[in-house]
Amino acid sequence: MPTVGIIGGGQLARMTAPAAIALGVRLRVLAADPDDSAAQVVVDAPVGDYRDAAAVTAFAQGCDVVTFDHEHVPMPLLEDLVAGGAVVRPRPQALRLAQDKAAMRACLTSLDVPCPRWATVRDKAELAGFAAEAGWPVVLKTPRGGYDGKGVLVAENPDDAAAWLARAGQPGGTGLLLAEERVAFEQELAVLIARSPSGQAAAWPVVQTVQVDGICREVTAPAPGLDPGLAAEATRIGLRIAGELDVVGVLAVEMFQTAAGPDGAPGDAGGRVLVNELAMRPHNSGHWGMDGAVTAQFEQHLRAVLDYPLGETSLTAPAVAMANVLGGRSSADGGSAMGIDERVHHLFAADPGAKVHLYGKQVRPGRKIGHVTVLGEDMTSVRARASAAARWLRDGVGE
Amino acid sequence: MPTVGIIGGGQLARMTAPAAIALGVRLRVLAADPDDSAAQVVVDAPVGDYRDAAAVTAFAQGCDVVTFDHEHVPMPLLEDLVAGGAVVRPRPQALRLAQDKAAMRACLTSLDVPCPRWATVRDKAELAGFAAEAGWPVVLKTPRGGYDGKGVLVAENPDDAAAWLARAGQPGGTGLLLAEERVAFEQELAVLIARSPSGQAAAWPVVQTVQVDGICREVTAPAPGLDPGLAAEATRIGLRIAGELDVVGVLAVEMFQTAAGPDGAPGDAGGRVLVNELAMRPHNSGHWGMDGAVTAQFEQHLRAVLDYPLGETSLTAPAVAMANVLGGRSSADGGSAMGIDERVHHLFAADPGAKVHLYGKQVRPGRKIGHVTVLGEDMTSVRARASAAARWLRDGVGE
Repeated sequence: MPTVGIIGGGQLARMTAPAAIALGVRLRVLAADPDDSAAQVVVDAPVGDYRDAAAVTAFAQGCDVVTFDHEHVPMPLLEDLVAGGAVVRPRPQALRLAQDKAAMRACLTSLDVPCPRWATVRDKAELAGFAAEAGWPVVLKTPRGGYDGKGVLVAENPDDAAAWLARAGQPGGTGLLLAEERVAFEQELAVLIARSPSGQAAAWPVVQTVQVDGICREVTAPAPGLDPGLAAEATRIGLRIAGELDVVGVLAVEMFQTAAGPDGAPGDAGGRVLVNELAMRPHNSGHWGMDGAVTAQFEQHLRAVLDYPLGETSLTAPAVAMANVLGGRSSADGGSAMGIDERVHHLFAADPGAKVHLYGKQVRPGRKIGHVTVLGEDMTSVRARASAAARWLRDGVGE
Repeated sequence: MPTVGIIGGGQLARMTAPAAIALGVRLRVLAADPDDSAAQVVVDAPVGDYRDAAAVTAFAQGCDVVTFDHEHVPMPLLEDLVAGGAVVRPRPQALRLAQDKAAMRACLTSLDVPCPRWATVRDKAELAGFAAEAGWPVVLKTPRGGYDGKGVLVAENPDDAAAWLARAGQPGGTGLLLAEERVAFEQELAVLIARSPSGQAAAWPVVQTVQVDGICREVTAPAPGLDPGLAAEATRIGLRIAGELDVVGVLAVEMFQTAAGPDGAPGDAGGRVLVNELAMRPHNSGHWGMDGAVTAQFEQHLRAVLDYPLGETSLTAPAVAMANVLGGRSSADGGSAMGIDERVHHLFAADPGAKVHLYGKQVRPGRKIGHVTVLGEDMTSVRARASAAARWLRDGVGE
């Protein structure tokens, strides 16, 4: 059986391990640290720096395919890897759009994919010029390296952006920031697509995501009450991006659903879904599928990068809700003295149907340390259960 | 988080790994060989002989709880382990009944649990005496060490049993054989129960099993067309055995469903279900739950031995079918030249909904090397799909 190498040892690589075990696929993980989430549970997990060409090259030599837990591997290194004969999926030309949000915006715009208004800005004058058209506040993003709300600033005026612009202009900085219109959205959606080297693509049902402070808190599948025409439009956009960019593996497309245009038609030309972010790897918005889809994103990602035919993506229950477990305050800081193990005991007593996934990570306030999924008939109920379970695991105290 | 140690590195330990990863529980496996099914995928998998007291004691020292992939660990060794302070679940007093089928029969009979007629026999005369009451053929079992049809002989007459009786009587032999009435059954059923040290118990729906040459081929959940009264009776028997024997962890109770008695009442006093075999560990008849139950047996076994509250056992689809993948003939012996990896490719193209679980085992004809599960609305359809998938993976040729 083939060996799949994942660069990065976070929770995405960790959650790929069960899928590899079932398929009999050999998994290899390049971890930054022996205590990494995935390194705890993967037998073949050498430690090395993903920015070190020698370490990555040595790692890739043991792999039939190389794929990713994160998008931070330097592009020249990946290009050298491919030149040296390694099979890298997704390929660097696609991955650079997940690495660089300004390049991604330019590419999507060239494809006429609906996006929020955007511009790259180098200084306050350019920012003010953009805001004159798009209005304040402006969402500023560092093109590279952001995640979970990091690298995103909502600026009410040019002065709010001064420090970020100065940092971008420094040596080693990106030279510019991505400025985006702040979209008044009805809800946030995510479309997950898996695509194979042979071009087969499969989409999961469109889900709703709820973000708080830039961090995903809840995902509900399918997106409740979503107009079928709009769901089809969102899926079409996801499939188009996957195809045009020649993505291999899982692609997550996060979208804003805006209010209906003047004519009220769903999916009208005025655009009722706008693409917010892309990720070319398994994504938080797809974790629900581990319990709630016939094929989970981690299995599907393995199937895609190995060019196995893709698996069925339908739901295993009418309503599926996933809630992220964030790290709560430590007991030294006024948090509960109850450890995570004891919290799990209590949760299982309270809700025998809650599916708990822990990442083996040290608890830090606000850090994603796991998630909980609940399946059922009624979305209101499963959502309340998942949310209550995640809150309990975070705080260790009742409401 | 706690560490659970499993003695034995077979596929049951392997399939426990994904459950441990999700729960954040640390898993430790005592493997017989570094290539064992579980040792391939579990980071902490020391190699040692389960019959070696020093090896087992050293292994147990790193564990909060010790449990089992198989029932072959010598009883004195387990008793010493408990005397030395290790937490062993199930406890040796219960496990000895899974090790010794004659002891199990005596215990069940003392509890008035319905069983086939049985006796222990030491020679042809005793066997003939038993057959005079129970009729020929007689099912002869070595009380210890049998599995997958090994250790079972259907004797048509005393001479058929001569070699087995002679072997039992040799030094190192068991001294006797277990003789059982051959039951004319309508179907075979299995009841899986999980039970915690605190006494909580949970039962999965009763399933039908189909055995060929003593090896489980198919399991369908729930057992199709099973009378609800009889299902309740079977579950009651399973729960009673788990409680009376103080089992901790998963208990599998394999049963025969016989034709209705003269009064035709389901579950009547004449006994319409008879207990065939017991296993005190996750069991082949529960593999369907990895895809088809809210809580799979491997997660439930971990929860039980750690005394976490048990998980919901309901089905995630109306009909679930599991088929075992057996090793087929090698290409040198006239089998397909297509490797397992290529067979999986073809299977996924033919059936995107088939869930494949491979055990990382060398293919040998008739050896269990994996299983396939299919979920759906209609039992006839999912059963045909699971069966076709397993046959394809075995043979690599169409029908």
